[in-house]
Amino acid sequence: MKATIINCSLKPSPEESNTEALAKVVADALESQGVECELIRAADHELKPGVETDMGDGDEWPAIHEKLLSSEILVIATPTWLGRPSSIASLVLERMDAMLSETDDEERPVAYNRVAGVVVTGNEDGAHHCIFELSGQLGDIGYTIPGQAFTYWNKGPGPGDEYLETDEGHDWSAKTGRACAQNLAGVAKALAQNPLGPPPE
Amino acid sequence: MKATIINCSLKPSPEESNTEALAKVVADALESQGVECELIRAADHELKPGVETDMGDGDEWPAIHEKLLSSEILVIATPTWLGRPSSIASLVLERMDAMLSETDDEERPVAYNRVAGVVVTGNEDGAHHCIFELSGQLGDIGYTIPGQAFTYWNKGPGPGDEYLETDEGHDWSAKTGRACAQNLAGVAKALAQNPLGPPPE
Amino acid sequence: MKATIINCSLKPSPEESNTEALAKVVADALESQGVECELIRAADHELKPGVETDMGDGDEWPAIHEKLLSSEILVIATPTWLGRPSSIASLVLERMDAMLSETDDEERPVAYNRVAGVVVTGNEDGAHHCIFELSGQLGDIGYTIPGQAFTYWNKGPGPGDEYLETDEGHDWSAKTGRACAQNLAGVAKALAQNPLGPPPE
Amino acid sequence: MKATIINCSLKPSPEESNTEALAKVVADALESQGVECELIRAADHELKPGVETDMGDGDEWPAIHEKLLSSEILVIATPTWLGRPSSIASLVLERMDAMLSETDDEERPVAYNRVAGVVVTGNEDGAHHCIFELSGQLGDIGYTIPGQAFTYWNKGPGPGDEYLETDEGHDWSAKTGRACAQNLAGVAKALAQNPLGPPPE
Repeated sequence: MKATIINCSLKPSPEESNTEALAKVVADALESQGVECELIRAADHELKPGVETDMGDGDEWPAIHEKLLSSEILVIATPTWLGRPSSIASLVLERMDAMLSETDDEERPVAYNRVAGVVVTGNEDGAHHCIFELSGQLGDIGYTIPGQAFTYWNKGPGPGDEYLETDEGHDWSAKTGRACAQNLAGVAKALAQNPLGPPPE
Repeated sequence: MKATIINCSLKPSPEESNTEALAKVVADALESQGVECELIRAADHELKPGVETDMGDGDEWPAIHEKLLSSEILVIATPTWLGRPSSIASLVLERMDAMLSETDDEERPVAYNRVAGVVVTGNEDGAHHCIFELSGQLGDIGYTIPGQAFTYWNKGPGPGDEYLETDEGHDWSAKTGRACAQNLAGVAKALAQNPLGPPPE
Repeated sequence: MKATIINCSLKPSPEESNTEALAKVVADALESQGVECELIRAADHELKPGVETDMGDGDEWPAIHEKLLSSEILVIATPTWLGRPSSIASLVLERMDAMLSETDDEERPVAYNRVAGVVVTGNEDGAHHCIFELSGQLGDIGYTIPGQAFTYWNKGPGPGDEYLETDEGHDWSAKTGRACAQNLAGVAKALAQNPLGPPPE
Repeated sequence: MKATIINCSLKPSPEESNTEALAKVVADALESQGVECELIRAADHELKPGVETDMGDGDEWPAIHEKLLSSEILVIATPTWLGRPSSIASLVLERMDAMLSETDDEERPVAYNRVAGVVVTGNEDGAHHCIFELSGQLGDIGYTIPGQAFTYWNKGPGPGDEYLETDEGHDWSAKTGRACAQNLAGVAKALAQNPLGPPPE
């Protein structure tokens, strides 16, 4: 079983990413469930804005799209800016919009029988909203969202420390991240055994 | 397999409910999948505000709570007011907040291995947001949200007809509702065969 | 100049309300700006669900509606439940939906030339979203939302203390609340001097 | 009085933009109020992801930032993708995040005494949510959001025509857009006469 984790930080490598640090907690927990994980930092790639799978000429989305199609599990990890997911998370979801009309050889939308979860960090309040928004969009595309398939970290009220600047609250985020990983793997396995059929006419 | 459908219209019976009309499309589709459905209109019951399962003295939530615990499938159906779910939908979710700390005999949150979907009607734009919000809250409580487990109806732009005042767009909402029912039943069955375990410590 | 502050806590008086405690910080700051404040706890009143100004027989909304019409400033104060405003906040906004079609003697929607702000407390993340949702609905009805017309308090990550259980972060929330009060009073005064006219045909 | 209108379509010029078409209705109405309007298509510019005003080396945001500082009025216009504003709208707001800590010579956040509104088009439901999200973020930065300072267009339910593919509903969107323009200009004038002071310590 494979998982693709897309870190939607605004910062390319090798800059330190708080979001990546928490995403790795979930990746580690997925691997301990026997899931092979690949972590992609979206900002390291040339991802053109648009709603097609291939926006042409230099577009690096098609390679990521292939990874999504070979993964049963997807995790979107995002920082919080002004209470909302990053623009790169929005761009990734826009690119995935094309998956709405892509079907497999049984006429199922390609996201069917795959599961998705969300990881959020922030230097301020906003995580629940990011989780609801991104999960909602992923569900719209056809991903199943297991119960409690998320984790997050922030400190309130007002702007403050980043995740990597303190240890406060890490335990809660890690424990919640382990449950996220277990639920992602569990529902993915359940669907592998009893897959959804194509939607009715 | 059982489904409970909670219609969160502001209007008690016997007033006509647009939301109920669309919820029934999903109920019919669930029944054709072999699922036994019960449709509850929340406004017909004395549901006290609060975040406990039993708010005492005349509170009719505990009986609905029992139905949730005996149903593998839950559908929240809501009208749209000012772009958001009804206050009654919010009240229902608040009452379900208590389920976060209720566990079964294997120490699993009681919502684990249950699935949920959302139905929205409106005389104006707002359905996607209602779906994302309610699905997000249901996922937070522990329900699994199958891919494309929703349907909605509205006409834009600006305020206009209610669902029962026109036939326009009913076909799309019905077709989407049949997919919703199939995905709810399908994921519920998959989880029944391969249930999630308790969250890790 | 008058302000009405509606505390949308789920708990009636005399139960202690965290939301009221932070709302009073804003009320005090408004009074120090020369604004006369009235704080209403919605849960103390019989407010029937619906979208009319008078839902009949025992409905106590009409009296609150009168207060709104005699106040230049409105503050909605809400707790956070599962990342969203309380059901009582939703109910209050639904009742205000009727104001969309009420006009003054110059054919202006009654909310024109009034301003509104939002106060949020929670034992977990969710404040930004509550502020955006409620401000958005108030703007839809016709209220002007001054810049930075909010304050909030919560601690993350995960569920934890309530506002009145700790002093942590109170300074930030109070300072932000004083700016909220100043901006509400300032924009209300600016509009009193140069009021908006009726919307064009 | 000046207005900057940022079209956050995913498509660069000279591709036809539905969002631009509706934004122009608001621009025309602003001009008939005596406001000088400049319409910028964000996708035509090299806007780097980030939360600083100048992200260096080829970044074209600083020039747009200058326009914002010389405009009393800002309109963000966005298409709807999967129920949410475009990634380019999110990117623009992220770049504006830096304005939170920029102050004028009276120690006021630079967005104080400026007003903002939102225009949304879509081939499906989602406009209210886009308006609430973007208005909320603009208010967080310090912009005042006049009552009813928005317009939108979409047709439901389900995906369908784009704005420029039909005339249906254009009248409502245009009328609402004229009110938007009048309210933006009116509140901007009121604040010019009676500006907000710096936030209290």
